[in-house]
Amino acid sequence: MTPILHEYSQSGNCYKIRLTAALLGLPIERREYDIMKGETRTPRFLADVNPNGRIPVLQVGDRFIPESNAACFYLADGTELVPEDRFDRADMLRWMFFEQYSHEPNVATLRFWLAFVGEARLDELQRALLPGKRKAGEAALRLMDEHLATRDYFVGDRLSLADVALYAYTHVADDGGFDLSAYPAVSRWLALVAAQPGYRPMDS
Amino acid sequence: MTPILHEYSQSGNCYKIRLTAALLGLPIERREYDIMKGETRTPRFLADVNPNGRIPVLQVGDRFIPESNAACFYLADGTELVPEDRFDRADMLRWMFFEQYSHEPNVATLRFWLAFVGEARLDELQRALLPGKRKAGEAALRLMDEHLATRDYFVGDRLSLADVALYAYTHVADDGGFDLSAYPAVSRWLALVAAQPGYRPMDS
Repeated sequence: MTPILHEYSQSGNCYKIRLTAALLGLPIERREYDIMKGETRTPRFLADVNPNGRIPVLQVGDRFIPESNAACFYLADGTELVPEDRFDRADMLRWMFFEQYSHEPNVATLRFWLAFVGEARLDELQRALLPGKRKAGEAALRLMDEHLATRDYFVGDRLSLADVALYAYTHVADDGGFDLSAYPAVSRWLALVAAQPGYRPMDS
Repeated sequence: MTPILHEYSQSGNCYKIRLTAALLGLPIERREYDIMKGETRTPRFLADVNPNGRIPVLQVGDRFIPESNAACFYLADGTELVPEDRFDRADMLRWMFFEQYSHEPNVATLRFWLAFVGEARLDELQRALLPGKRKAGEAALRLMDEHLATRDYFVGDRLSLADVALYAYTHVADDGGFDLSAYPAVSRWLALVAAQPGYRPMDS
């Protein structure tokens, strides 16, 4: 049974799941929704796919998994992308929760606001939030850079879902006005992820 | 080796970890930091415990796990609080990511702002964010209530970390001005969690 990914392909949260499947050589069926046209807030989407009105959602048979990192975990559970060691497995989740709490709301939101909505169309509250999100996004990238200064991957000595989750929005952070050249260890790690067997770029 | 919880005991994110340990009958050592006095932003805390400057952090020997839900997962990995079924395990993580992305930044933040900082001390931006966070917090509670209308627990038919993670800030949501009586299924579920063997209240 091939899982179905309900997605907006430009979203890093959706890309994470495609990248997990690609790295594991798993087939995946794709259904595209245009979030710019509100296609995930229709009564039908809310009733049939996700009452939270968000993508991505991974459908497995007649069951649904919202939340990008949970969907990645479903696909990768029991594979080499989830460490066998108990501490390392929790440490992987640590970086995935960091991604959703401290990275995505800043790095991904600035990308969405600046490269998709457009700065001229932001409302007053969004404009007021820009400097704080810039600062918090830079702090997240700096913390990643410090962590990667002495290691190749986020957890242990091999690729895990922590890398996949953080790669998705980091590798397009320049869309949100972040200067990745200021984070040399992050830049080196981005190239290492992109060189993995099975890797697929975001627009494929 | 008893894990050490670096915490601020009034934080729901810290309570989650204590509650996980209590439900599993695991001993835990506690170290208190006063976040209102900036004790998690000192150079020493940043260097020795968490470069992200946040609590909770679970210390296991000389290793550290920041991110509350990752710390809960570490303690509960391999126990009855983490479902054995692959889909259910991912579904548990789905609710834990929902908690950190859609619930905590609204329900917990309003509690912090209104019950700890005090509405009179909020800055202009925080005041501007209040209505949106109120609405998003209500949406999170409503989604939980709809999910629980036809089931006792978030995942499968028994308690899991999904319940523990969501319980922590939901049971004190009234501190942030949320009216829990508007969510009858949530209220019933709160009582069910509090009746579990080993349960400990937040202030114990």
